Amino acid sequence: MTFQEYRELVRNQKTDQEDCPIQKLMGIFSGKWTMTVIFELTREDTLRFGELKSRIPGITAAMLSSTLKDLERAGIVLRTQFDEIPPRVEYALSKKGKDLYPIFLEMARWAQKYV
Amino acid sequence: MTFQEYRELVRNQKTDQEDCPIQKLMGIFSGKWTMTVIFELTREDTLRFGELKSRIPGITAAMLSSTLKDLERAGIVLRTQFDEIPPRVEYALSKKGKDLYPIFLEMARWAQKYV
Repeated sequence: MTFQEYRELVRNQKTDQEDCPIQKLMGIFSGKWTMTVIFELTREDTLRFGELKSRIPGITAAMLSSTLKDLERAGIVLRTQFDEIPPRVEYALSKKGKDLYPIFLEMARWAQKYV
Repeated sequence: MTFQEYRELVRNQKTDQEDCPIQKLMGIFSGKWTMTVIFELTREDTLRFGELKSRIPGITAAMLSSTLKDLERAGIVLRTQFDEIPPRVEYALSKKGKDLYPIFLEMARWAQKYV
């Protein structure tokens, strides 16, 4: 599909609606750390909170926690708590989260060309 | 490409580097209004400031102005000023900005399936 064909496709779509699906995805993605957290979770089946934090330099525990909660609410991240002492919590991408990969792939292609 | 193939591809890429291209693109995209502004510019050849603002409910002039400046700096948006009275300023996507469309297309596909 060319840019012109894409333009024709989106030209009549409205973004000013509360229930616009692209708008909603943009809302999910707009968090400062959201895409970085999803990207890190793409690499492994599961990651613990501390593992995630150490892989993302600059993120605070509070920011990571709030990002993960948003992603859980959006159904993109699954949180599994194991009743051990001390309690173990693992994070993983859901099917819905894994299906974001074509977006990341296109982002990587673009970045490779232009950044 | 499947998710597993994608995972293999990205597994050894580092995001903790200052110069990681995907990280940089994520930085560009992370602005609250960035993707909405790009999306609106996708629809037309050029848009004036006021036209953009009226197409994006909820955005203030200050936020739109700062988003456009960031996108100009990133080479995604071209700003053309016409020396008329009153001065006319038009915004358009550059080639680099237009080439973002496969990312938006995949986002639309995902949103259609899941949102």
